[in-house]
Amino acid sequence: MPNLYVALTHYPVVDKRGDIIASAVTNLDLHDIARAVKTYGVKSYYVVTPLVDQQSLVQKIISHWTSGSGAVYNPARRSALELIKIKDTIADVVEDIKGIENVYPKTVVTCARRYTTSTGYKEFREILKSGQPHLLVFGTAWGLAEPFISEADYTLEPIMGPSDYNHLSVRTAAGIILDRLLGE
Amino acid sequence: MPNLYVALTHYPVVDKRGDIIASAVTNLDLHDIARAVKTYGVKSYYVVTPLVDQQSLVQKIISHWTSGSGAVYNPARRSALELIKIKDTIADVVEDIKGIENVYPKTVVTCARRYTTSTGYKEFREILKSGQPHLLVFGTAWGLAEPFISEADYTLEPIMGPSDYNHLSVRTAAGIILDRLLGE
Repeated sequence: MPNLYVALTHYPVVDKRGDIIASAVTNLDLHDIARAVKTYGVKSYYVVTPLVDQQSLVQKIISHWTSGSGAVYNPARRSALELIKIKDTIADVVEDIKGIENVYPKTVVTCARRYTTSTGYKEFREILKSGQPHLLVFGTAWGLAEPFISEADYTLEPIMGPSDYNHLSVRTAAGIILDRLLGE
Repeated sequence: MPNLYVALTHYPVVDKRGDIIASAVTNLDLHDIARAVKTYGVKSYYVVTPLVDQQSLVQKIISHWTSGSGAVYNPARRSALELIKIKDTIADVVEDIKGIENVYPKTVVTCARRYTTSTGYKEFREILKSGQPHLLVFGTAWGLAEPFISEADYTLEPIMGPSDYNHLSVRTAAGIILDRLLGE
C-alpha cells in the first residue's frame, strides 16, 4: 500500500476571476473521492475548510454513512467515508500527518495548467515507491491559489486526452490521478 | 480522435438486491461524464432512460448550460454538455450511431465483476485504433443488468487499485476508463 494522503481544499482556492475564496462543500466530492481513495489504498482523505458551518455539514454527511442508517444500507460506502478527516487548513493536515509518520509529508499539487517544473505521472509513481509520506492536494472551484501551488514540493502535469479541453471535475481528476499513480 | 461513443444507462440496471430497475438521473453524472467525454475526444455522450419525466429533466439541465444563462457563465461547460443526446434505449443509441457511421458499433460494457472473457485496457486501446465505431456503455445504480452484459461484444476488466475495494462511482470509473483507453 502507498504511503499517500489526499486532501481536498476549499480554501484558499480561486473563483472564475482569479480572486481567492472559500468554496462550498459538494456532497459528491466527499463520496466519489472517498471511494477512489479507498480503492487505491490511500491512508486518509482530508477535507479542508475553515468554515465552521461547512465542517458541520461534512460531519453530518460522514456520520450518516458511518454510524447512521446509511452504514447499514451500504457498508461499502461506510468503509470509504470512514477515511475522511476534517481540518481547518492544509497546515493542520501536514501537522496531523507529522503526528502519524514522525516526519512531514512532501506536498504534491495538481493543476490544470502546465508548469516547466511539472512532474510526470510515471516519475511520481516511482517517487511514491520510496515509502516516504506524501500529501496529494486537490483544489475545488477554479483551483488552488497560486502561492499555494508554488510552495508545494511537486506539481503534477495536467491530465490531457487527445483533445485540448482540460476542464475535468475534481472528482474525475482525482480518480484519474490516483489510477495513474497507483492503478494496476 | 477515437471513433468512440459513450452511453450512460438508467435502464435496464439492477438495484442492491439484483432486481432490474430504472434508476433516477443524477445531475453530476451528466456534468462529470460530459466533461470527461469532451476531454478524451469521444463523439457523443448518450444518456439513456425510457422515463419521460427523467428525459425532460435531462433536457432542462442541458438547455441551461448550452443555451441558458449557464452557457454565458461557463462556456467550457457548454461545450461538454452539447455532446449529450437523450435516448429511450440502448437499441436506439446503436441505431443512431448506425445512421452516422453507416455500420453498427461494437458494444463494450464495463462491470465491477471480473469475467474470464474480460478484455484488458491495453488490448482494447489497440482495438480502438482500428477506427471502427465502438460504443462504451456504463450502468448506473448497482450496474448493468446481466443479460445486457452477456450480449455485448466486449466486457472490460474491473478497475482495481492496490486494495480489493471496487466500489467507484460511475463518474469516477468513466473518467479512469477513458484515461486508460485514450489518455496520453
